[in-house]
Amino acid sequence: MPYVNIKITREGATAEQKAALIKGVTDLLATVLDKNPATTFVVIDEVAREDSGIGGLPVEEYRRKIKAQT
Amino acid sequence: MPYVNIKITREGATAEQKAALIKGVTDLLATVLDKNPATTFVVIDEVAREDSGIGGLPVEEYRRKIKAQT
Amino acid sequence: MPYVNIKITREGATAEQKAALIKGVTDLLATVLDKNPATTFVVIDEVAREDSGIGGLPVEEYRRKIKAQT
Amino acid sequence: MPYVNIKITREGATAEQKAALIKGVTDLLATVLDKNPATTFVVIDEVAREDSGIGGLPVEEYRRKIKAQT
Amino acid sequence: MPYVNIKITREGATAEQKAALIKGVTDLLATVLDKNPATTFVVIDEVAREDSGIGGLPVEEYRRKIKAQT
Amino acid sequence: MPYVNIKITREGATAEQKAALIKGVTDLLATVLDKNPATTFVVIDEVAREDSGIGGLPVEEYRRKIKAQT
Repeated sequence: MPYVNIKITREGATAEQKAALIKGVTDLLATVLDKNPATTFVVIDEVAREDSGIGGLPVEEYRRKIKAQT
Repeated sequence: MPYVNIKITREGATAEQKAALIKGVTDLLATVLDKNPATTFVVIDEVAREDSGIGGLPVEEYRRKIKAQT
Repeated sequence: MPYVNIKITREGATAEQKAALIKGVTDLLATVLDKNPATTFVVIDEVAREDSGIGGLPVEEYRRKIKAQT
Repeated sequence: MPYVNIKITREGATAEQKAALIKGVTDLLATVLDKNPATTFVVIDEVAREDSGIGGLPVEEYRRKIKAQT
Repeated sequence: MPYVNIKITREGATAEQKAALIKGVTDLLATVLDKNPATTFVVIDEVAREDSGIGGLPVEEYRRKIKAQT
Repeated sequence: MPYVNIKITREGATAEQKAALIKGVTDLLATVLDKNPATTFVVIDEVAREDSGIGGLPVEEYRRKIKAQT
């Protein structure tokens, strides 16, 4: 512990960006709560767009709708 | 919030069926608990059959066993 | 399978409302994907308000901010 | 999306510290992946010490053992 | 990694039983997949009975129904 | 219930090894807590190496670093 799970839609995050997330959140826990990086675990899940939703819609459809409103 | 995670075995659910799950569960939370759809997130995970188990057996084997008993 | 996890902020959901969520999401999976209710598991997590955030803010602060804007 | 779940052992994290985690991880996702804070959800779970383990031991026992070795 | 999350209904599991789960699942991963216990994390969640369901019913109601049938 | 989620890095675990994990953890819950195998669910997630981290580093880099130190 700590254990951090980050779920993002799959849109081409690179290995470098994922490494930056892992480092960033581990540093955050060390800074804010003095948590030991050696026992801080991070798992990133990339979720296909059709597999995630918000506002009752698949994420892509939701984005189109929001865009159309603005 | 709310956040809903639905895990199903991977057996060919279509994008339309997934959209129906996203809409259905978002509506359910609005109806039962008056939760705001705009901040209701849904993530669907399709799990390979060999990666899920019940009754101490991988899911497919479990189904075969149940079928054989009936 | 399926397994459904519903996370909501803790704001007094009753046992009846929780039962309605369990029934509703189980029915939804049976209707949309023909999933067997006998092997559909649901877990509801009530999350303390200070433990959930959106828009970079704890949920309550976020709501106040949104309200102030409208 | 994104959705972030942070699990820490329960050891007196304050509401301010939790707010700092929520802000920090939301900023991180905006900086690294240009994710929209308005749709970034964070859930913090505090886990009782007897409910988490590492190295095959409950977390407290594990800490004692590591300390004794050093 | 590995990370293991065990969810059980809250029915009085003792600290000793939880320690046995932590040890057992860590040993299992070492035996089956040669995973390093030093980086094997386990989190146990006890779920209130009204917060978990199966067969479209809260868990307790489900048990009563099954019992009545047999 | 119970529900068990096992996350491991993706490194070629076979279907037989996964079946052994499913059986092992189901037996463990039956032995320690007298949990019914018929309602014990297991989900295994294999996580790509770049998607998991420890010590602030992606898992592979972390292993290289540990190896270099010993």
